Amino acid sequence: MAIVVPKLKFSPPQILAIGYATLILLGTVLLMLPVANTTGRALPLIDAFFTATSAVCVTGLVVVDTGTFFNGFGQSVIMVLIQIGGLGFMTMATLLALVFQRRISLRERLLLQEAMNQGSVEGIVRLIRRVLYYSIVIESVGALVFTVRLAFDMPVGQAFYYGVFHSISFFNNAGFDLFGHFSSLTAYTADPVMNLAAVLLIVLGGLGFVVLSDLADLPRKKKLSLHSKLVLSTTGVLIAFGFVVILLFEWSNPGTLGRFGLGGKFWGALLQSVTPRTAGINSVDLTSLHQATQFLLLILMFIGASPGSTAGGVKTTTFAVMIGAMLAMMRGREDVVFFRHRLGRDRILKALTIILLALALIITVAMVLSVTEDHDFMLILFETMSAFGTVGLSLGLTTDLSTFGKILIALTMFSGRVGLLTLVYALKPKKDPEKYRYPEGKIIIG
Amino acid sequence: MAIVVPKLKFSPPQILAIGYATLILLGTVLLMLPVANTTGRALPLIDAFFTATSAVCVTGLVVVDTGTFFNGFGQSVIMVLIQIGGLGFMTMATLLALVFQRRISLRERLLLQEAMNQGSVEGIVRLIRRVLYYSIVIESVGALVFTVRLAFDMPVGQAFYYGVFHSISFFNNAGFDLFGHFSSLTAYTADPVMNLAAVLLIVLGGLGFVVLSDLADLPRKKKLSLHSKLVLSTTGVLIAFGFVVILLFEWSNPGTLGRFGLGGKFWGALLQSVTPRTAGINSVDLTSLHQATQFLLLILMFIGASPGSTAGGVKTTTFAVMIGAMLAMMRGREDVVFFRHRLGRDRILKALTIILLALALIITVAMVLSVTEDHDFMLILFETMSAFGTVGLSLGLTTDLSTFGKILIALTMFSGRVGLLTLVYALKPKKDPEKYRYPEGKIIIG
Ligand SMILES: [K+]
Ligand SMILES: [K+]
Repeated sequence: MAIVVPKLKFSPPQILAIGYATLILLGTVLLMLPVANTTGRALPLIDAFFTATSAVCVTGLVVVDTGTFFNGFGQSVIMVLIQIGGLGFMTMATLLALVFQRRISLRERLLLQEAMNQGSVEGIVRLIRRVLYYSIVIESVGALVFTVRLAFDMPVGQAFYYGVFHSISFFNNAGFDLFGHFSSLTAYTADPVMNLAAVLLIVLGGLGFVVLSDLADLPRKKKLSLHSKLVLSTTGVLIAFGFVVILLFEWSNPGTLGRFGLGGKFWGALLQSVTPRTAGINSVDLTSLHQATQFLLLILMFIGASPGSTAGGVKTTTFAVMIGAMLAMMRGREDVVFFRHRLGRDRILKALTIILLALALIITVAMVLSVTEDHDFMLILFETMSAFGTVGLSLGLTTDLSTFGKILIALTMFSGRVGLLTLVYALKPKKDPEKYRYPEGKIIIG
Repeated sequence: MAIVVPKLKFSPPQILAIGYATLILLGTVLLMLPVANTTGRALPLIDAFFTATSAVCVTGLVVVDTGTFFNGFGQSVIMVLIQIGGLGFMTMATLLALVFQRRISLRERLLLQEAMNQGSVEGIVRLIRRVLYYSIVIESVGALVFTVRLAFDMPVGQAFYYGVFHSISFFNNAGFDLFGHFSSLTAYTADPVMNLAAVLLIVLGGLGFVVLSDLADLPRKKKLSLHSKLVLSTTGVLIAFGFVVILLFEWSNPGTLGRFGLGGKFWGALLQSVTPRTAGINSVDLTSLHQATQFLLLILMFIGASPGSTAGGVKTTTFAVMIGAMLAMMRGREDVVFFRHRLGRDRILKALTIILLALALIITVAMVLSVTEDHDFMLILFETMSAFGTVGLSLGLTTDLSTFGKILIALTMFSGRVGLLTLVYALKPKKDPEKYRYPEGKIIIG
């Protein structure tokens, strides 16, 4: 997989990681500038670094309030970082190449394959062209809806600016908002237009471009790929499950859904069920949720959204494969079968590896933070999970983080975005050759 | 696997589950009797049921204090329940058969195979004979050491009674103690004799009789089985890891290790590292531990001890296989290799299934309890994990449990002891025949 370039030798994952890191550094410098915020003083390096990482990794954890601290220039920098980070640095670079009609080389296709996590090189270029197209169309429609709705509450110019910012932020599952004082969508808990638009943008952004592309081809091809079927069904089940449990747990909680009528309860439960996959906006006060509901969000954040999307987490397909493997074992079957197709054994191993690596990282980070930060463990675990899943939901720890804590959470966001496996391969790109096979041994399990 | 007996048809797992349930009911009746406790009044049904389940499932979660509430008769009932539950109902039945020189039939061997979780029928009978031998020898030595040590603190007769009770309780990883007022070993934090004896009893009990048998054969055979090597190395790594992290986190915590010298710190860290596998005794106040340390105990309790032992949890080998699968994946290898032997794919699937089923059960129970019990989620999760792993450590929830909570925790202990897979097979004993194999499909993971 290693590719020779003049003098230096980088693997695609390494180039990907370096690309994201460079973008974060650039963002840090811009956000530090006194002209980027409303105070006129320079933002401390660590806070600028944290904000840039959060934007590039489309997380949405914030140490300063985006709406009140940053001015138009600062907010625009964040918006651009979100858009580039969301579409993916590598995808973006290729899009530029496409725009300039340059021929795509095999090497560039391999880089793209890594960035999009696609199984085959074929069709990658066509997919990338569509990424730009879909993003523009969906984000434009979203911006239009938000603008019309917000024009009832604010001047049309501001409504348009808000519309564009939030459409980009929500579709890229970035979780940044301009509503001020860390309020996110809490002023719109029962608002059907805001919620419907937000939910659709988040879900579409979280399905992944491969699935969107497949859906667009549906009228012509009359069938979906196995991957798309699995993503759509898993996403549907997760949303429905979260919706029902949140509704059940929070129905009469005066701090959250209890004070709303049926409409507010419906939209509140739906948005909070959708947001851990991995938007990071919220329309109720998360700290007022029952601890069981917070724990449910924790699990949903861990699962996250789908591969090749703008979102983080271990991914819906990984989760589905684990469940499929469990069901197969319980039914005494040898194969993991979805929609009349069995999965290769390597898929199960990869899913397992991702889940274990993610768990190990999250637990380690949370334990270290519980030593450096003087806060409840649940709060710390929630924040760590949110950072790893690039979700952006917080029970309030972000603004209290020590400098060390900010750096650690920023690095966790980076790992979550670039992908653990990519990072592991980047650190250890050479495979040892498998010399010979050992005889099979017997052990007792469970 | 289903075996025909006159008129009724039970699979070995079903017989196993029924055996444990019968023992629990018998214990409940005995512990309810007014003559079993020091108050002279009948213990409420639910509390007797909970205590009997806790004893049979060698868990050690208690709603009434064993040392002060029960009298000699009640404590003896608990001790017998622990011994029978620990050695395993089925093992015990066969031991009786052996004692009476009855021939062991194939059917009885199959039942034993299920109970001992052994891969082959061969050697089972020999193993069972050893179970009784090892238990008597190890428990006798343990009782002697405790008696001598405790004779310095109390009359010799009481010291002997305490010695026998605690040796049985600790070797079977039951976690019951007579020291009163839920104090467990907190009066002996820095005591070398008490701690060394306790640690050895717990570790030996948690290795599993297969490994003990293998170790006894070591001088003659000069080699250990793959299973024993894996159990011993995983147990060693877990104890060392827990020891170092606990020492690090609690070194200067005035509520736990901070008030002790080097000896107390050493023994305190060691005992608390060993006890989640799955003894359930404690020598420091668990509620005073840092939350990060409590979380570490939570993870260690989830892993638990080794298969075929007196302990619960998902088991050390299950954990080792998961880690092995992850490392193989990361190194680009196709096989999971331990000690120059590769593992069958079915081992990985079984390990994965056990872990996922356990997680699903624990999370579901904890979420239900967080609705019915008015307590911190961490407390509830800890209690649920402790019940499932049949560990018996508690942050104090047990005595506050509602009747519903007691029933749910008792059922969780039962699932943890009988084994989730056994339970699942017991509920669904018939395998669907695998009619044909589906073509392989492609999806994107992570
Ligand atoms: K996000
Ligand atoms: K126990």
